[in-house]
Amino acid sequence: MPKQNLFAVILAGGSGERFWPLSRRARPKQFLALVGERTMLQLTAERLAGIVKPQDTFVVTARAYLDLVRAQLPGLPEENILAEPVGRNTAAAVGLAAALLARRSPGGIMAVLPADHYVADVARFQAVLRAAIGAARDGQWVVTIGITPTRPETGYGYICRGEQHAVFMGIPAYRALRFTEKPDVRQAREFLASGRYLWNSGIFVWRVDLISRLIARYLPELHGGLLRLAGTIGDRLAAAMEEVYPDLPGISVDYGIMERAPNILVLPGDFGWDDVGSWPALEGYRENDDLGNVLEGRGVLLDTRNTLVYAPHKVVATLGVENLIIADAGDSLLVCRKERAQEIKRLLAALKEAGLGEVL
Amino acid sequence: MPKQNLFAVILAGGSGERFWPLSRRARPKQFLALVGERTMLQLTAERLAGIVKPQDTFVVTARAYLDLVRAQLPGLPEENILAEPVGRNTAAAVGLAAALLARRSPGGIMAVLPADHYVADVARFQAVLRAAIGAARDGQWVVTIGITPTRPETGYGYICRGEQHAVFMGIPAYRALRFTEKPDVRQAREFLASGRYLWNSGIFVWRVDLISRLIARYLPELHGGLLRLAGTIGDRLAAAMEEVYPDLPGISVDYGIMERAPNILVLPGDFGWDDVGSWPALEGYRENDDLGNVLEGRGVLLDTRNTLVYAPHKVVATLGVENLIIADAGDSLLVCRKERAQEIKRLLAALKEAGLGEVL
Repeated sequence: MPKQNLFAVILAGGSGERFWPLSRRARPKQFLALVGERTMLQLTAERLAGIVKPQDTFVVTARAYLDLVRAQLPGLPEENILAEPVGRNTAAAVGLAAALLARRSPGGIMAVLPADHYVADVARFQAVLRAAIGAARDGQWVVTIGITPTRPETGYGYICRGEQHAVFMGIPAYRALRFTEKPDVRQAREFLASGRYLWNSGIFVWRVDLISRLIARYLPELHGGLLRLAGTIGDRLAAAMEEVYPDLPGISVDYGIMERAPNILVLPGDFGWDDVGSWPALEGYRENDDLGNVLEGRGVLLDTRNTLVYAPHKVVATLGVENLIIADAGDSLLVCRKERAQEIKRLLAALKEAGLGEVL
Repeated sequence: MPKQNLFAVILAGGSGERFWPLSRRARPKQFLALVGERTMLQLTAERLAGIVKPQDTFVVTARAYLDLVRAQLPGLPEENILAEPVGRNTAAAVGLAAALLARRSPGGIMAVLPADHYVADVARFQAVLRAAIGAARDGQWVVTIGITPTRPETGYGYICRGEQHAVFMGIPAYRALRFTEKPDVRQAREFLASGRYLWNSGIFVWRVDLISRLIARYLPELHGGLLRLAGTIGDRLAAAMEEVYPDLPGISVDYGIMERAPNILVLPGDFGWDDVGSWPALEGYRENDDLGNVLEGRGVLLDTRNTLVYAPHKVVATLGVENLIIADAGDSLLVCRKERAQEIKRLLAALKEAGLGEVL
């Protein structure tokens, strides 16, 4: 088989609110160093080292984040940053990248990666990604990596796998039977026990011509908009996007493509994956004291249990509290019962309604 | 009876820690505007309007707080601010003032007032204070105001009253039988039920020559030190205090004088008194929402109950918490279970031990 061009498309347009007040409209999760010294976006890009070259790596982001992407990925060519004038969900972002890549290499392979997930075992991740690329090579298959579940998580989507189709570089590829949205606890337990379900990682690998055809077939409205962009270049592209983007349908790849396309392969990934979806997730990446507390910053936690304090710039003293998230961002402070951390969006809506949108 | 000089001595040397992080070593409670726009010290001084003239009002404070007193009481003559080089409790502060006043008017009357208490009904306070001054006029009686208790408080000292001695300006004066330190709950309930116990307000009225004699009798060591100060003046006084003060015994008026002196009268005060002793006390002076929350500052309290938020300079968002004190002071943050607010001193000790004394 001839050598094929290989591209990575990192989706970094999300406006994640779940780490408020650390994450802000102006600096969402993918631009934060939540699990170490490097930001989630930087870690995502670095994970591709040796597989995809910087000049073949693209980032789709919101216009407001252009400077953040430039600053955090200085090795990326300027023209590889695709700035959406408005967010229109992942299908549009993927379609945009596919439309532009089709001009360079319609038979090329395109790996789509969320910018804000964590991977513990990078070598294993790379092995699975290489296998997925191998599986996508003939242009017949939509390939995805499904994460081997370790708990009955209700916050993730699941993929039900069927027969084994082939083995790529030692890694089995299964037919994907079904994509399932976030299950309830009972369902999640069944999924875990069955051994046939994997978490939807949002990592997709396909040939550019295949995803273009699938968009044309399943998302004709998006396809039409992308056709209007495909002929433009440089400044004209920016102007065309301004015109076309607001009218594109806002639909996810999962819902628009994965739940409909017939030829999907899923490769199990067991590389220590985490979507780092809310404040409590940070505890896994920080040192706990004997009472289950995590303190990022300086302070004293007295008679305090199971509490996460994130306040790098001030001294915090707690007394007699438990199960709290305490997060300080200078102009704003969150104090939240840990079990309620998933509801931070409600809080942000309430802040906005109260006229305090300045801190969002 | 001839007109007697009348002096007020406001004790403002305390280093109260119980409003940390709002109160600091450099700005303790009496210098904070906890119950309105004016500070506790300012309210204390203003309460004397019409009774004691500014030139007859003295403030005993720590040297570190000199500038605060000057700034908060600009009408006070400079020489009326007595700055202790080190704190030596209330008997020394009272003795210092008495020693200086004795030069001006040994037969004068001296009202001693803590700088950091709250009074709701100022007119009634003034009526009781005038009556107490009347009771002290003949120089036979140590006079104190005892607060009519409204709850079985375990945080205050109590005074057991005996027979009625006389009525001054319509207010009865009782013999004080006993001063009792902070009781346990059972005792406090008995005290309240008996109707014979009053809270020790720390407000004392006596003639200068009487308190001087009592100090000589019960606190001879303090008396000796004060004799060394009594002859000095101006710069020489400051130098003498530097030398004498560190060796003075650190004893309270309550313990050193009131628990020993025989001739004590107590006048009941029912003017809405509060020592504003810790964070939860502030709730009485702020508007509560339907769920018992108080928010000083801007923010949103969602599914939050019985929580006090003091954060005037930032936006606070809480979710799913209850019974908390949340207090932010820019460089430091307190999150404390409300029932534990009395233990803040432990927290401050722990902060000091952890090398974080900079925020105390």
